[in-house]
Amino acid sequence: MLEEIQKKGSLLSYRKDIHILDCTIRDGGLMNDFRFEDQFVKNVYNACIKAGVDYMEFGYKGSKEVFSEEDFGCWKFTSEEDLRRIVGTNDTKLKISVMADVDRTNFNEDVLPKSESVIDMIRIACYIHQIPSALEMVNNFHEKGYETSVNIMAVSHVTESELNEALEILGQSKVDCIYLVDSFGVYCPEQIRTIAKKYLAIGDKYSKKIGIHAHNNQQLAFANTIEALTLGVSMLDATITSLGRGAGNCPVELLLGFLKNPKYHQRPILKIIEEDIPKLREQGVKWGYDIPYMITAQMNMHPRSALKNINKPDWDKFVEFYDEMTIED
Amino acid sequence: MLEEIQKKGSLLSYRKDIHILDCTIRDGGLMNDFRFEDQFVKNVYNACIKAGVDYMEFGYKGSKEVFSEEDFGCWKFTSEEDLRRIVGTNDTKLKISVMADVDRTNFNEDVLPKSESVIDMIRIACYIHQIPSALEMVNNFHEKGYETSVNIMAVSHVTESELNEALEILGQSKVDCIYLVDSFGVYCPEQIRTIAKKYLAIGDKYSKKIGIHAHNNQQLAFANTIEALTLGVSMLDATITSLGRGAGNCPVELLLGFLKNPKYHQRPILKIIEEDIPKLREQGVKWGYDIPYMITAQMNMHPRSALKNINKPDWDKFVEFYDEMTIED
Repeated sequence: MLEEIQKKGSLLSYRKDIHILDCTIRDGGLMNDFRFEDQFVKNVYNACIKAGVDYMEFGYKGSKEVFSEEDFGCWKFTSEEDLRRIVGTNDTKLKISVMADVDRTNFNEDVLPKSESVIDMIRIACYIHQIPSALEMVNNFHEKGYETSVNIMAVSHVTESELNEALEILGQSKVDCIYLVDSFGVYCPEQIRTIAKKYLAIGDKYSKKIGIHAHNNQQLAFANTIEALTLGVSMLDATITSLGRGAGNCPVELLLGFLKNPKYHQRPILKIIEEDIPKLREQGVKWGYDIPYMITAQMNMHPRSALKNINKPDWDKFVEFYDEMTIED
Repeated sequence: MLEEIQKKGSLLSYRKDIHILDCTIRDGGLMNDFRFEDQFVKNVYNACIKAGVDYMEFGYKGSKEVFSEEDFGCWKFTSEEDLRRIVGTNDTKLKISVMADVDRTNFNEDVLPKSESVIDMIRIACYIHQIPSALEMVNNFHEKGYETSVNIMAVSHVTESELNEALEILGQSKVDCIYLVDSFGVYCPEQIRTIAKKYLAIGDKYSKKIGIHAHNNQQLAFANTIEALTLGVSMLDATITSLGRGAGNCPVELLLGFLKNPKYHQRPILKIIEEDIPKLREQGVKWGYDIPYMITAQMNMHPRSALKNINKPDWDKFVEFYDEMTIED
């Protein structure tokens, strides 16, 4: 089956199945505890509409029993009221998504029926051992009328046979889309092609869309995203200027410049980059490729060891950090 | 022939034919008129030796009839005295290279016989219409005892048939290595694979090494370099923290983290990044991926339109620059 996956589309045409999902606020929120000004969120929303972006992800559906409202801005919880304050009834082509973490979402109470919500898609993030819980959420959200995806995180720490089994289970479920997630930014294009073929084989077998969520620890998020799309992956996560956890994500401005569908426009995103992104930097929000993230990725590690130094003078002590990460006790 | 080029090596082994060429000083010199302090050049030289880098390129062999010594630091000219001030007689495994531009090098007078020089390789940079002049230089340097390469610039502005002819001519010459140069940072991995196969077919036919010199305008320099190497390209240009013209080059620290040959070590380069690179930034030297370089690359243009604004407040006016580049008069 893997060998049958071939290049789809060409560099001068476009595929109608391709969708961009902007997760600037959701993944970026990990770097400022989700404390974005409403005006910024509105500007990103309007820019996504003008740019032809297909989905915008606003935040997490975090449980208030797990997380305190004092510790986080509203996009950690993403209530219907928060969303409507920004999008009204969202009478646009832009679909709205939120992310729900397994075990951290009070999904029976906090997720309304689709008929009462502006949300279109709910993406379920889980580790591989949480697949049964993820399926319970898929069924719940599916019955409520939502599109769903399951995003298995940290697959670079998972055996091939476990991943094969997980993908089979998801293939047989009601989920609409399965995401290849490079949580640690560890993969190079050759590896992404191999893994994408595995996901795409399941997608072909069970008629599921396949998505990719890349991280930029090795300056490979854009490369890995376009390599995966060339093979048939169709849901592409990206953020404005990579804004996201640690080294951040695939930059949506690069992706918009690459895709050939005339519905996509780069200029509205450049306006945000010029006018709004500098304010975030001034507020002290830090993200994007840097040496400590490169080191954790090359070690196939979560970036948390790098992130713990992000606001300390130790951040720039690259050699010390390298020694810490590579010398075993 | 193109279809016969297959993947060479694997992700856990290494190929002995792979060589890294660090061109931090030569390409980086384009951003500060080659005015590096000797101590910085010495630190890069010592770091390259410790890191197991194979070649270090110090500068251009610019003609003093074309360029004034008042306008440039010494690495625009790279005299034997300049080199020996840094490397002595270079009793190390690190080979030394310089670059010679066609029509801007007084090669009869300024290039000594190899027996009188610490230089090992001379790389000839030319546009496609300058191939006959490049061949004259290849012969001259070859007779003097040097390794040579020809680096055809701006191939994204060249027709396929012209490029095929140029590669055939170079294949039949005495040159040791032919470089695939992505001058404008325009290529994506899929394109790099196609073009690399073309170069590699000539390399196979005439026993020439093939090299790659990538630019990072679309955050693809590292991706393109490792994709090309996977197919058989063996001379890999890279610079510390991408230091080079505009968006810069393939970061050598990423490459050292990727390659598996135990002779390579990343730590000495991290030391330079920690201790020396911040001083260059403080001196006002600017380089690395940014939006204007992305825009020129996506338009398949030389970065000079972006570079003209580099020290002006206009640099951050991304929308205005985008309109300038994309709206025809």
